[in-house]
Amino acid sequence: MRRRRKPGSKEKLLSHVEYLTDTPQDFKGKWKTDWFKNDKPIHLELGAGRAAFSVKLAQKYPEKNFIAIELKEEVMLPGVEQAKELGLENIAFVWVNIMNIHEIFDTNEIDHIYLNFSDPWPKNRHYKRRLTYRGFLKKYSEILKPDGWVEFKTDSSSLFEFTLNECAELKLPMKDIGLDLHNRNSLDEIITTDYEEKYVAQGRHIHRMLFGLAPLQVDSQE
Amino acid sequence: MRRRRKPGSKEKLLSHVEYLTDTPQDFKGKWKTDWFKNDKPIHLELGAGRAAFSVKLAQKYPEKNFIAIELKEEVMLPGVEQAKELGLENIAFVWVNIMNIHEIFDTNEIDHIYLNFSDPWPKNRHYKRRLTYRGFLKKYSEILKPDGWVEFKTDSSSLFEFTLNECAELKLPMKDIGLDLHNRNSLDEIITTDYEEKYVAQGRHIHRMLFGLAPLQVDSQE
Repeated sequence: MRRRRKPGSKEKLLSHVEYLTDTPQDFKGKWKTDWFKNDKPIHLELGAGRAAFSVKLAQKYPEKNFIAIELKEEVMLPGVEQAKELGLENIAFVWVNIMNIHEIFDTNEIDHIYLNFSDPWPKNRHYKRRLTYRGFLKKYSEILKPDGWVEFKTDSSSLFEFTLNECAELKLPMKDIGLDLHNRNSLDEIITTDYEEKYVAQGRHIHRMLFGLAPLQVDSQE
Repeated sequence: MRRRRKPGSKEKLLSHVEYLTDTPQDFKGKWKTDWFKNDKPIHLELGAGRAAFSVKLAQKYPEKNFIAIELKEEVMLPGVEQAKELGLENIAFVWVNIMNIHEIFDTNEIDHIYLNFSDPWPKNRHYKRRLTYRGFLKKYSEILKPDGWVEFKTDSSSLFEFTLNECAELKLPMKDIGLDLHNRNSLDEIITTDYEEKYVAQGRHIHRMLFGLAPLQVDSQE
């Protein structure tokens, strides 16, 4: 749901200098050394929305760094405020168009990517807008380590189907494919997003899979 | 559903000598030349049940040969009688345990395999009985051409999930993955099984995918 922009919210956001910067490109290749000031792996959530998922992860996994990416900066304010309340030191918030993430992150700088409940763009003619369309996957491959994984969750069976077929056609490695995440007892405990909790309460099935991007990186490695 | 064996049905079945033989192993490596007496590709349905699906395909595609495989021979009688009624010359019926198909077919003798609505064996401890368990896939790879595909349909999302993960772990090529075959308009027209029509009428989702087996054949090709 699109919210009306609250006046002053960008300024309010930017006042939280310990969680974000309006010149994230200055940290390209230097997020560990210059921003987090440690050598922990960086996990990136793309299309993070309010970033509740990243905040939960950051709280649970102090041994990792988290960066939440969202196009609409003011949406993230509640996440930033929550991170501050919790005193988290391993999370940052960046607003950028996903097609420009190579300006913010260097080759191999990212260890793991999360894609949660992105817009399914159900009309066939909009397939290039889906965040698991190969144009986006190629973009992610520019910053993800070759042995890193993209962890993808959705309640949309059409988007999941699309993603399976993109991965199959591109011969990407896949693992931990689940068609009903919350009804299989063999799965690890689940960190949920706000959307996810709502969907599960409605009885919708959550689909999940992990895929690698190394086959897309072959060109650049040659 | 298991039927009571009708007395005399095996004898009745065997009277249809133009559709089946009780010594199928005699045709190993010679199905095209000695049985069908042509050079058309051979499509195999495993666990064919009443074989209504294979009969429909044989009727629709005279340019291909079809063989329906079923463990319980008497189950196939209606299919055999229907093939006879239709005067089909491109279909045969074989009863054999799937683990013994290498005794009936030679390396590379099969062009395409269908697996339709096989038993999901939903209990975790029974996973080795599922017809897409790697032990079975290895067996199919002994008779399928390296560029051939296994076409798999099921209404069981747990069996489909299991199969996706088997294929992913074994790095098998996949294509045409569909999570709701009868609700996507982009798919070709669908040949249905008896079960399938019943399931679709009940509003169940039919899952479909194709996968190759060539990565399992590397050992034998070395």
